[in-house]
Order: sequence, then C-alpha cells, then structure tokens
Amino acid sequence: MRFFSDNAAAAHPAVLASLAEADRLDTAYDGDGWSQRLDAAFSDLFETPVTALWVTTGTAANCLALASMVPPYGGVLCHREAHINVDEAGAPEFFTGGAKLLLVDGPGAKLTVDAVEDARSRIRRDVHQVQPGALSITNASEYGLTYSPEETAALGAWAKTHGLRFHLDGARFANAVVSTGASPADLTWRAGVEALSFGCVKNGGLSAEALILFDSALADPTRRLRKRSGHLLSKGRYLAAQLLAMIEDDRWLANARNANEAAQRLARAAGAERLVHPVQANEVFLRLNAHEAARLRSAGFDFYDWGVGEARMVTSWDQDLAAVDRLADAIRAL
Amino acid sequence: MRFFSDNAAAAHPAVLASLAEADRLDTAYDGDGWSQRLDAAFSDLFETPVTALWVTTGTAANCLALASMVPPYGGVLCHREAHINVDEAGAPEFFTGGAKLLLVDGPGAKLTVDAVEDARSRIRRDVHQVQPGALSITNASEYGLTYSPEETAALGAWAKTHGLRFHLDGARFANAVVSTGASPADLTWRAGVEALSFGCVKNGGLSAEALILFDSALADPTRRLRKRSGHLLSKGRYLAAQLLAMIEDDRWLANARNANEAAQRLARAAGAERLVHPVQANEVFLRLNAHEAARLRSAGFDFYDWGVGEARMVTSWDQDLAAVDRLADAIRAL
Amino acid sequence: MRFFSDNAAAAHPAVLASLAEADRLDTAYDGDGWSQRLDAAFSDLFETPVTALWVTTGTAANCLALASMVPPYGGVLCHREAHINVDEAGAPEFFTGGAKLLLVDGPGAKLTVDAVEDARSRIRRDVHQVQPGALSITNASEYGLTYSPEETAALGAWAKTHGLRFHLDGARFANAVVSTGASPADLTWRAGVEALSFGCVKNGGLSAEALILFDSALADPTRRLRKRSGHLLSKGRYLAAQLLAMIEDDRWLANARNANEAAQRLARAAGAERLVHPVQANEVFLRLNAHEAARLRSAGFDFYDWGVGEARMVTSWDQDLAAVDRLADAIRAL
Amino acid sequence: MRFFSDNAAAAHPAVLASLAEADRLDTAYDGDGWSQRLDAAFSDLFETPVTALWVTTGTAANCLALASMVPPYGGVLCHREAHINVDEAGAPEFFTGGAKLLLVDGPGAKLTVDAVEDARSRIRRDVHQVQPGALSITNASEYGLTYSPEETAALGAWAKTHGLRFHLDGARFANAVVSTGASPADLTWRAGVEALSFGCVKNGGLSAEALILFDSALADPTRRLRKRSGHLLSKGRYLAAQLLAMIEDDRWLANARNANEAAQRLARAAGAERLVHPVQANEVFLRLNAHEAARLRSAGFDFYDWGVGEARMVTSWDQDLAAVDRLADAIRAL
Repeated sequence: MRFFSDNAAAAHPAVLASLAEADRLDTAYDGDGWSQRLDAAFSDLFETPVTALWVTTGTAANCLALASMVPPYGGVLCHREAHINVDEAGAPEFFTGGAKLLLVDGPGAKLTVDAVEDARSRIRRDVHQVQPGALSITNASEYGLTYSPEETAALGAWAKTHGLRFHLDGARFANAVVSTGASPADLTWRAGVEALSFGCVKNGGLSAEALILFDSALADPTRRLRKRSGHLLSKGRYLAAQLLAMIEDDRWLANARNANEAAQRLARAAGAERLVHPVQANEVFLRLNAHEAARLRSAGFDFYDWGVGEARMVTSWDQDLAAVDRLADAIRAL
Repeated sequence: MRFFSDNAAAAHPAVLASLAEADRLDTAYDGDGWSQRLDAAFSDLFETPVTALWVTTGTAANCLALASMVPPYGGVLCHREAHINVDEAGAPEFFTGGAKLLLVDGPGAKLTVDAVEDARSRIRRDVHQVQPGALSITNASEYGLTYSPEETAALGAWAKTHGLRFHLDGARFANAVVSTGASPADLTWRAGVEALSFGCVKNGGLSAEALILFDSALADPTRRLRKRSGHLLSKGRYLAAQLLAMIEDDRWLANARNANEAAQRLARAAGAERLVHPVQANEVFLRLNAHEAARLRSAGFDFYDWGVGEARMVTSWDQDLAAVDRLADAIRAL
Repeated sequence: MRFFSDNAAAAHPAVLASLAEADRLDTAYDGDGWSQRLDAAFSDLFETPVTALWVTTGTAANCLALASMVPPYGGVLCHREAHINVDEAGAPEFFTGGAKLLLVDGPGAKLTVDAVEDARSRIRRDVHQVQPGALSITNASEYGLTYSPEETAALGAWAKTHGLRFHLDGARFANAVVSTGASPADLTWRAGVEALSFGCVKNGGLSAEALILFDSALADPTRRLRKRSGHLLSKGRYLAAQLLAMIEDDRWLANARNANEAAQRLARAAGAERLVHPVQANEVFLRLNAHEAARLRSAGFDFYDWGVGEARMVTSWDQDLAAVDRLADAIRAL
Repeated sequence: MRFFSDNAAAAHPAVLASLAEADRLDTAYDGDGWSQRLDAAFSDLFETPVTALWVTTGTAANCLALASMVPPYGGVLCHREAHINVDEAGAPEFFTGGAKLLLVDGPGAKLTVDAVEDARSRIRRDVHQVQPGALSITNASEYGLTYSPEETAALGAWAKTHGLRFHLDGARFANAVVSTGASPADLTWRAGVEALSFGCVKNGGLSAEALILFDSALADPTRRLRKRSGHLLSKGRYLAAQLLAMIEDDRWLANARNANEAAQRLARAAGAERLVHPVQANEVFLRLNAHEAARLRSAGFDFYDWGVGEARMVTSWDQDLAAVDRLADAIRAL
C-alpha cells in the first residue's frame, strides 16, 4: 500500500475516456474545439471571466504566471519552503529571466501579512536591492495546511497596497476547496489572486494542469511564453479534454474529497501529539521513530521519511479507504 | 478533406491503447517502469547506446538539445527557414540563455557544407562576434526534402573539424527514414549527429516526442534543464508508453510510409512543373493560382496558401489513400 | 599615421582636466554633484526634459535601452549590419533576456520605411513567431551615412503606427549632427526617438557614454538594469564630469567637425568612383586593390582592409589635417 | 568629516597621473600596451601565472567570475549577507542566466566549512533541486572580518572535494592582506581560490577593478562575457594604467594600511563592548544609541546608521589620521 505521492496514482477513468473522445482530426495547438471551450468552462467555475490555459506541469503553470507578473530584475515574495523555491530546479529564475525569490518564513509553509510585511520593509527602495513585484502562496501549502478566504484576502489586500501581483500555487487547490468549504471564487480573485495554478494531475489528471488568469492583461505574455518555453502542444485537444472531464460533474471535488477523507482517518489515528502539522488537505506529517517506521513498512505500508524522526504520507483521489483504515489501525497500534 | 498539418491528425489506436496499459500506480516523474525502458528500446532502434528522454513538444526537444550544446554566449548555425528560427517564438534563445542563431541560406531549407563553411568563415574569431558552437539541420527539411546519410555525414565531419556540436531536428525523421531507405543509425550518429529530436506527434503520437542523445555527456544538463523548464511531467509513464507503442512493431515506419505514399500520389498528379520542391517526405508545395486553389477548395479539399501563388499540402499517417486519389484527380483536372 | 578607429584616439584635454576637478570626496554611485547635473545639461542640449545616464560603453547604452523597450519574448527590427547585430557579441540577447534581432537589409546599413514595413508584414501575428517591439537605427550608420530629420521622422511615425519603440544608436551622433546641420532635437525626439545612445568615447571621451531617455517611463527599468548589469560605477562623478566637459562650449561638435572635415578631404581625394559609400560622417570606405593598399601602407598610412578590394579609413576628433592632406595626396597619386 | 563609504573618497594622485600617461593613441579595447602588461604584473604579484582583466565595477568582476564557473541551472553557495546576494540587484542571476544563490549563515558574514557542509548536505542530488557549482566568500567580509590563509584553505579543500569552483570577492582584498600579513598568493590560489575580484576603487582607484583568474580555463568564457555584458571598454588603456599604478611600489598596500590604521584607532577608542564585530579591516560597526549618534554628528562626524542602535564607520585610503583621532576622542567621550 503506497502513500508516497499523489503523483503516483492512476488517472480517473473519465479522464482517460475523454482522450478517446478527443481523438479525432481537429485544428492544431489550441485552435481545436476542446481548447476553445476552456475559458467558458472555467469562467463558470470561478463565476467571473477568466483565461484558462492548459499546460502539462505545475512548474510550468507557476512559472508562466510569475514570468508574466515580474520583470527579470524583480522579485517574488514566497515561503522559504515553497515548491517554487525548493523543488522546481530554478524554474522561476529560468522563466522570469533571473528574478529573485525573496524568502519568508512561517509555520507550516504558510505566509501571513506580518511575515511578508516584515520582509518587504527590510528591503531598501534603492537600485542596489531587488524589489518585490509579486507575492506567491500555495494553497493547500507544502505541509498540507489551507488558507481561508479571509487569510487569502488579507494577503491580497496587502499585495495590492504595495503594488504587488498575487499568484496562487494550487497544485492541491481542490483539496483546499473541499477542506475550507469555500468557493473557488472566494479563495482566488475575490481575495485578490490574479493567477492560479489549478492542479489536476495530483487529483486524477493524466498530463494536464490549468493556468487560470483572472487579469486579462496577463494573457498575451503568458500565451507567448507558453509557446516560447515549448509548452504549446501540437494536439492540445488531449489536454483540454482532460481538464473538461475533471471539472464536469464536480469530479475534481469528489476526487479531493476522497483524498482528504483518507488523510483525516490517518490524522485521527495518529492523534494530535504525533502530528507535525494539523491535517487540512491530503498530506499527513507524522512523528515516527525508526522502529515505528520499520513496523509500518513491514506491515506493507510505504511512505517517505521526512527528516529525522518524521514521515510524510500522502493520500490520493483513488485511495482505497479500507486500506487506509488498515494503516490507521497500524498507526494506532504503534 | 484536410491537408493542413500532420499535427491535426488523431493518434494511432495503439498509442491510445498504451495509455490504458500505463494507467496504474507507479513511481512519479521518470522513475516508472515505462520510462525506465526507453533507453534500451531506442538503443536497439539506433544500434548504439543512447539516452532517450520523453518530452511533449518538438520545440522542447530541439531547444533542450541546443541548450546542452552551446553556452549562452555561443551560436547555432542553422537554415534561415529552420523551424527553430521561424516557428518557435524565440525558444532557442530562451532555453540557451540568449545564444544566437547564425542563419544560412540554401534551396529547400537544406544546408550544404559549402553554405555553412561560407557562413563560418565570415565570422571573425574575436570577442566581438558570436562564435558558432553547434550546427542544426532538419531532416526531412521544412520543405519536405531529405538529407541522405552521405549528405548528413559530410556536414557531421565538417562540424567535427570545427569543434561544433551537431543537432538534428527530426520532427519528420520517420518520413526521412522511409524516404531514404537508410537506417536510423546511418542518418544520425554514424553521420556525426549527437542529439536528435525524434518526432512522434506528427506521426501518430498523442503528446510524446523523444529526445535522443548519442553523447552521454549531454544527458545530465539535459535532464536538469528538462525539469527547470517545466518539462518533467509527474506521470511520465503516459509519455513513455506512447513512445514504446510507436516504435514497437515498426509502427512509426508504417505510419510514415502511408503519409509519404499519399504525398507521392499528389506529387505525381501535380507533375514536375507545378511542384515548388521535389517531394521526398509528406509535404507537397504546389504552384496554384487563386482560381485553381478556389476550385480545389470548392471540391472539398482544405490546405494552406504558402505565399502568393503557392500552396502547402501535408499528408498524415492516417490519410485515407482513396481520398488522396480524389485530390490527385482534382489536381490533374486543373 | 593611423586611420584604424576613432576608438584609438586620445581623450580631449578638457575631458582629462574634468577628471582632476571631479577628484574629490563626494557621494558614491550617481549621488554626486556631477551626476546630478546631467539631466539638466542634456535637457538643455535637447530642448526637452530628458533622463541622462552615464555608462561606459556604447554596447551598454544600446542594450540597456533595448532591454527597457522590449520584453524577453519580443524582437528588435534593425539592419543586418547594425553594430548591435554584428559587433556586440550577443549583448542585445543578453540584456533583453533573449529577444530576437529581426534583420532588415538596405544600402549603407540604413533602413527605410519600405524595408522595415516589408519585414514587419512578413511576420505572422500568431504566438509562433517573435513579434517586433522596437526599431533600432544607427546615425551615422555603420557605413558613415547619416539619416536626415525627415528620414528619421518617417521611421519614427511608422514605428508609432505599429506600436514599436524607437531607439537610436548614436555612437557617432555628433558626426551626424555636424553633417546634417540638424539640431539634436530634430534628429531624435522630434522624430519619434525615445532613447538615444549618445556616443562620446569615439569623439574625444575617455570612458563615458550617455544614454538619453526621452520617455521618462524608461528611466526606472534602465536604472535598475544599469546596476544589475554591473554598470553602476562607485565613483560616477568621473564619468559625469567627462560628459559635462564634452557638451560644454559645444566641444562635442567641434570634435566631430574636425573628424568630418578630415573624412571629406579623403573623400574628395578618392573621388566618387573609388568610394563605396558617400562620405557623410568620419568613415571612408574605399575601393583599393592590394597593390594600392600596399602603396599607401608603405607610405606610412595604416587602415583596415574591409573585405576583398576595399578598405576602411576612420578619422578622429584630433586627426591632424596636415597628415590627412598627405594621405589625400597619396590617394590621388594612386 | 565623512565616514560613509570608501567609495566616496578621491582617487590616488598616482592613479590620476597614470591617466595622463595613457592618454595617447593606441590600439582599441584591450590590445593596447597597458592592458597587455596586466597579466605579467599580476602574475608577479601573485607568484603564479594569472589572467588579469580590467573591469569597472566589483559587481562586474564578481558576476563575470561566477558566470564562468556555474551553468545557468547551477547554484552558488554564499553568505546570506554577501554583497552578491544583498547589494548587486540580482546581477549574479543576470550574468549566470538564472543560477541560484544558495544562502548560508554565519557570524560576521563569514562562512565556515561546517556551515557550508551543512547547507550542501541538505540538498538532494536529484533534478528537482539546484545543485551547487561554486562557493563564493568575501575577504574582508561585509562586516570587516578577515579570513586567514588557513580558513580560506579549509574552504578551498572542501570545495575541491565536492567539485565546486571557488570565488573570492576581494572588494577589500588589500585590507585583508595588510590585516592578516599573509601574502596575496596564500590568501588565494594556494588556498584553492580560482577567481578573485581584486578591488581597487574603494582603495584609491578611479574606475578600475581587476578580475584575476588563476585557472586559465576560465579566461575565454570570461573575455567573451565581458564583451557581451558591455564591459569591454573601447579605450581600455585608461583602466589598465590605473591598475598598474596601484600595484606599482605597493601603493595598494600602503593605501590599505592607512585605512586599516584609521579603523584600529576608532576600534580602540570604542572598546570591545561597543564593537559589534572585531575590527580587522577598514570597517567599524559600533553600538551607538540615538543620543550618542546625534552627539557625534553635531560634532561634525558623518556615518550611516546600521539598523537600530548601531552605526557603520568606514575609513578610506586617504583618511586624515588627525581627524580620525578627533573622532576617536569624541567616541571615548560619549
């Protein structure tokens, strides 16, 4: 039973089925019928007109957004443990032409207005220091914590006050929506978010993510850089079809609901003391000593160590809840 | 009946079927079983050990290769009408960090040793001019002409003499292999090619291209930049499976054979005088006046104008030969 | 007697003297008294408010301007033989983050509205091709030809119509002003020029060039990139003082007048048939066979060959006119 | 009496005099007689063959070195308060094409083997994280602390073990040489340093810094990027002449000796309790409350506040020691 990563899971059957439907001659790139429906479908979902572009990775979505937001000589305020800083191999620097990530700390990989204001206020306004041009947060965060609409809106208002763009890395946005019970709109543009990396692959997609632009001024540079960075696929219909299948019938929410429920069962089994962070999405960080970890593994449960004495378990859209209960029991029995 | 672009065609059934087979939990990125088989499968195909990396676009394949070959202050000798110069939105400049395309002319978008030597010899060796670091050709060329093994080897030997890397854009490599009757090895590494963009999408693929590295020194920088440019997909198995399906049972050659045959039928119908270029792959460039073009279109045949008085027709892996014959008849009847 | 390059000449005595005057404790970077006077001094010269920034090379001036004008994914229309394309080692690509030089032809390295419109009209407006964002010309051109105010204004109007920025490389701007008899204003902002690389080093300066921005929106990005590219010197007063000395008492025009006069004497001696280009500034391109070139050299005159059967002679601000007359006589005697 | 910055001071008379000597017609760029003598002069100074290149700023020296050492996808280990991270406006990211500064902490802006090893060991070796390619330290550090030959050699050995290049920012290298009593060789290449930014401007120069390359493999890429970044001045002789004047007769050491002596007098007056850092070069960081700072300023002494309750005083090569003693007395009297 594997709890390594939601990237490891299979695709949702409806996603696979959508590929077969899209498998016909149509216009190349994003001129096809499926791609042309994306803007409308996501505009419905977000209750406002948006530009929705398919890409194939969260890294591409994040970095296309950032590159449309800051000049090469600018900076992006983000958490020190943000995926864009830690796990994207310098992609933000590559896409932006050398913009600087300006790192901020905070528990659970979450940012607060106080923390970003403190960081901003330390930067001299002269030409010798890189000036921030955007703020980027991750919801759910890299440690599975969610931002509420109010927390997001506070950051959005602060960004606006200081003339900063606001990007949301939503690799696990579905999990955040389910967890907070908030609407997609309240977690994004109503809170000031101008671009969202809308994750699908971790949530049952096959190879499609969506980049949602709430500010139409970002669309042209983003489309051009999507091509320039090799991310404009020839047969875009196969990506668009995946995204449409995912948001149809709220599949994306059903998938996230299952993953979140699995995580909650593990969290309850672990108990507050064993949990490194509150469990609000589909990631569970546990204190496990080497002996305990070995016991779980010998019982057939696989997961990553996360530093010394800690472990990370990630649940998926298709996690079998019966198996989850067996792991929960095993954790209780430690 | 559409003769616009081989990008518009559907995917081969075996490619689609391979997605279903790959649709199971496995390791993320390229740690899965399918991705791990790529090197061996393409090493067989090319009769030499290679590194084979999946990517999703030809632009990504081309530009990852070039970026591993030249420093940011270097240059790439290529044809003025090369896809990398004309149709990739500056992707080579982006991936390489600002390397310069050094443009060379020649009929049919093909390069010769004389042409590249002439260009090279005009460049002063001082620090004021960008020095070439690589040579890039396209086979079949942007006008559907092929390079023979001998032509390729002459360029390869010349490149080696001058310390230049050698890249081959093979968006339509399958068509060139079928057309020349040469082995994949003779058209690449035996002729000095060090990196090949092995096209699949135009030839029945869905979203996977392969970058084949014949020099293992290029592998590490390429892998890093693949990630850094957002091209390392989370669920790489769906790409690897497409590639494996394509080269299994020589499907890629069967597909190209059909496309080439369709093009030959059109070429024979057109006759030498009407042809702008000899037809050696799956592209047919015709002299058609406005009246003639209109007649063909009113008979249900779609294609692009290509400048004034010319038209481009591209045939696909799944082109129905009966329909092709109807178009051929219509051309004869002009 | 050397006629290689105006870069080889010494500095004007007033420029050297200005260094001694500036040699006192003052604020670092451009906070000193001299740097602070630049905007006003050049605003007087150009009869309009400008931002004037010192830099140390024409390459830096050109490329800072271009980088403030076009995004990394944009393009710059310029002549194929423009200094920025031929002799700056890819600096435009470096400073802009990979923008593409879109090359246009024309006699004498000059551009016309017809030529740039032809180039522009061939670019598809889609995302696959790099879109021009700026036009750059050189006055006097790389072959010593000047643009009149009317020629410049025609290009400026065309650029404005198409939403393009307009940059003028004025490495030999002084020679153009003297030659055309036009005012600095008429050759620049009144003709639509938004940024000017105002050359001084070739005209008697020691290490200072000026970048003149007619559009104040370009100032902030340019100041930031000047620092980011290592061009914000600690003791800027020594650069500002040079520039102030050069434009004081119209020294820059007196210097250019001497260089132009020297070139005219050579041009008259050569006669129209021997001249490759009309002589309008301080560069003389002559048809000289090998025997003739050898005769001149054996008489003590040094200059560059410029391709086969041609030679380039450049005259300087401090060229001794008596020596020029000796060379003129020697040319007449060929 | 100003103690703001050593950038504010005038140039040494011998440096100014050298400009007059260099003020004659010679070959452009670095083909002149002065530039051609640099390698030999610095090879003597460092007791080993070096490549010595003039540049105009420390930022250019640092970033040219780093760009020749790490690929765009690489990283540079440096102190969080290193000048390259804090005060160069993202120049390292610009010159390297987006390499990442990997930040390490340590008192007094100094690095230790333990600190860099700890940072290195936290980086996963996979493609998702940026891998360090170089180590950069500053001697004297940004807080005026020096590295001994032994400390430098320990870091050099560690870097070599891990395949990292080793760069030394020597904006105040002269002060470190004087302070440690070590030879230039022992503080650099004998300790594993491969490139040194040899500061002159803060130490009596006018506009010239030297980049010293101990590894000849770095020379070609550096020369090319110097041009490409607009740092190859047309009349390089005026820079080379400054550097030659500075190292002739050990002027650079005499200058640094005066600045260090001035700093020592202030340090002794302040006493250990008031000093934030030990004083080992020409920078004095003091604890001063607002009242004390005001008293010193009203007595005619100018300096920067450095955070709350602290101040920075920097002494120069030409600092009048009598004035320094008056400030020392005023500090004692607080």
